[in-house]
Amino acid sequence: MKPSIPKGTRDFTPNQMYRRNYIFAVIREVFERFGYQPIETPSMETLQTLSGKYGEEGDRLLFKILNNGDFLADADQTLLSEKASNKVLSSISKRGLRYDLTVPFARYVVMHQQEINFPFKRYQIQPVWRADRPQKGRYQEFYQCDADVVGSQSLMYEAELLQIYDEVFSKLGLGVTLKINNRKILFGLAEAAGISEQFVDMTTAIDKLDKIGIEGVNKELHAKGISQEAIESIGKMLQIARWQDLSSHFENSPIGQLGLAEMQKVEDYLAISPLSNMYQFDITLARGLNYYTGCILEVKANDAQMGSIGGGGRYDNLTGVFGLPNVSGVGISFGAERIYDVLEELNLFPAETSDPIQVLVLSMDQEQHLEAFRIGASLREAGIPADIYPEGGKFKKQMQFAANRQVPYVIIIGEEELKQQKYSLKNMSSGVQQTLSLPDIIAHFEGNTDR
Amino acid sequence: MKPSIPKGTRDFTPNQMYRRNYIFAVIREVFERFGYQPIETPSMETLQTLSGKYGEEGDRLLFKILNNGDFLADADQTLLSEKASNKVLSSISKRGLRYDLTVPFARYVVMHQQEINFPFKRYQIQPVWRADRPQKGRYQEFYQCDADVVGSQSLMYEAELLQIYDEVFSKLGLGVTLKINNRKILFGLAEAAGISEQFVDMTTAIDKLDKIGIEGVNKELHAKGISQEAIESIGKMLQIARWQDLSSHFENSPIGQLGLAEMQKVEDYLAISPLSNMYQFDITLARGLNYYTGCILEVKANDAQMGSIGGGGRYDNLTGVFGLPNVSGVGISFGAERIYDVLEELNLFPAETSDPIQVLVLSMDQEQHLEAFRIGASLREAGIPADIYPEGGKFKKQMQFAANRQVPYVIIIGEEELKQQKYSLKNMSSGVQQTLSLPDIIAHFEGNTDR
Repeated sequence: MKPSIPKGTRDFTPNQMYRRNYIFAVIREVFERFGYQPIETPSMETLQTLSGKYGEEGDRLLFKILNNGDFLADADQTLLSEKASNKVLSSISKRGLRYDLTVPFARYVVMHQQEINFPFKRYQIQPVWRADRPQKGRYQEFYQCDADVVGSQSLMYEAELLQIYDEVFSKLGLGVTLKINNRKILFGLAEAAGISEQFVDMTTAIDKLDKIGIEGVNKELHAKGISQEAIESIGKMLQIARWQDLSSHFENSPIGQLGLAEMQKVEDYLAISPLSNMYQFDITLARGLNYYTGCILEVKANDAQMGSIGGGGRYDNLTGVFGLPNVSGVGISFGAERIYDVLEELNLFPAETSDPIQVLVLSMDQEQHLEAFRIGASLREAGIPADIYPEGGKFKKQMQFAANRQVPYVIIIGEEELKQQKYSLKNMSSGVQQTLSLPDIIAHFEGNTDR
Repeated sequence: MKPSIPKGTRDFTPNQMYRRNYIFAVIREVFERFGYQPIETPSMETLQTLSGKYGEEGDRLLFKILNNGDFLADADQTLLSEKASNKVLSSISKRGLRYDLTVPFARYVVMHQQEINFPFKRYQIQPVWRADRPQKGRYQEFYQCDADVVGSQSLMYEAELLQIYDEVFSKLGLGVTLKINNRKILFGLAEAAGISEQFVDMTTAIDKLDKIGIEGVNKELHAKGISQEAIESIGKMLQIARWQDLSSHFENSPIGQLGLAEMQKVEDYLAISPLSNMYQFDITLARGLNYYTGCILEVKANDAQMGSIGGGGRYDNLTGVFGLPNVSGVGISFGAERIYDVLEELNLFPAETSDPIQVLVLSMDQEQHLEAFRIGASLREAGIPADIYPEGGKFKKQMQFAANRQVPYVIIIGEEELKQQKYSLKNMSSGVQQTLSLPDIIAHFEGNTDR
């Protein structure tokens, strides 16, 4: 049998792991420095929790887990013989795999509301699963990295979340543009154009602007029965670069005005503590998900052809669907998989995001192997990542292993070395070799600033 | 709707996460210092990979994932109407959730054999899923932490893996006993008693010794048709404390002798680089899993009533089932969930495995809130984990939040403070309050050795 893994899933090799862990570590450190606390939720949630939260398409993309044991026992015989998959489903599966981190977080907040100190700032870094058709850069299992605040309407958090993006991407050495818009401003657009009842149609179309261009958007608006006059009015407003200039258009839109006031508030915070990356109001930013109700945020890498590498926004009724109404939330997500691809493309992974191994201990003959083990153990005890070749002799094979492992140094122990208690320390890239006592070797690595 | 999570699964709160991450971090650091490299494998594996690897019981406990879309389409109509769950299964599900980390690792090795530099030392810390009946301390989703070496028969690795246990539990401050035995010695036992053909029955019985006592073991051996003479012979040998004393019993058992030679070899390594925890040969150690073929290891906490908190051993044919024969592996596993419980019971979590937050910035009135934001941002920029209350005023509420969050310090900004650019820094446990400039506050935290 030739083994395989399910389509759309991946093994991660050590070199990929070092790089992935580097990204997660940077994000985690910034989240914690900004006062966000970690939680984890189960991979499996009840289908009651997951269903109906991600639209029809989302329900289709949920991975469902078969009930254990005699799973057909409770299924309806007639539906089974009709092969009515959809109708049989609820009787043979009651759990699914997490589809994102937002819905489980909302569920968590409701279940833990008595012990939570609001406003609650949480971060969560875990895989999610979607039965999407696999293609380049799209997987059925991938990590999300989310930070959210729940239980406060303060716009300070919008500014703070922008600072988090700013700080993470600065630490990663990746220049980005931070884009902001506000759902209330988009609603103002619809109101100003007299099509507030078709707000969703409008944002859905604007959301595709990047892909289909303004012509495509206009066509789609037209197809939705929106008048030529309204389409022109929207088109004009979409060209406005400063949110302040929308004020005159929003004279009859209190919600639009509220959106502008929110922009002002966020920028007051940013004025007193400025961002280092580019920051840009983008009226065309819509973000597909319809649960956002206030600010929306998006991050793009400056020097790579890549969609957004992060996004988020405010949703006024995060937990309502689980029976806890009027709880406001705001959050951001990092697209870790895309960030990985961009860092790789731009060659931005630091050299030290690699195997931490410092040295490999070799022995010329089996007789020196116990000594090799002793030396290796002493190095590790001194905190130096070290490895020991598992047997003496076959020296060429050992050196080949060291080269393949890309270990910076080897220690070579032969008969003479064992007698003298002085060992050869060889730099594998320069080839330079020194003969040193064990304490000197340890001192060498402790003073080693290579990493 | 009142939300819930599936039985046997858990949410982890921030305080639990700090403690869990502490355990994982200690284990990970030691693994890396000993030259083990991280990999990750997908949560979902094909049922072809998983099935038949864990016995009949294991197959039953696998979580199966329903095929996407019209999952009944390919199912046999007759079997469906007969509700023949087992026979229908393969037509409606082709993937399952990872049950352990060993089988996926074997699958990984076979699929990546061309790029692997053998001997390959890998570690893996990921959740696994088992449809066990949930009960206290047993969950359907839990983490495993495994280190394995594949591609070498050297007994150095047995010694090294014992050192890893030794080092991890020393760092955790938990006194343990490291137990060792060897499957070949157990086979020698069977041979010496003349029941080598009932080796599996014998080890299965001995494996239950802890639970059912020697009387129970004898009864079970008797029920398997093993003669009274053989039972007595085994009973005598089970009382032998030093493996050296088995030598005379194994005169006619070459495999038993090989087991003793392997013990000698492991102890040669340990003699030159001794363990700090208790180390004990335990002839009654059997470990249920039948794929072990050489040394077997187990760890018990000295001061807690708890089963093993770690175990492992050598298996001579790890990858054979996936078509790559004669590859020897040896590995260990940490029972992270049990280690958590023991550390909690013995109060061994260090104080700093908690919220890293240092200070919370409060403002007396909304007018000082922008200043609070500026101060908070400056602290974070200086690397100090800080939070800012999201609005000014309602001072009592802010102090209550600070107390609930258990933050060590608060900074209080009022009208006077804003004017003077000097701020009140209050120690929340002593109540002591100082008035300091921002640079002095930053210096205070940078010099803070509280944590």
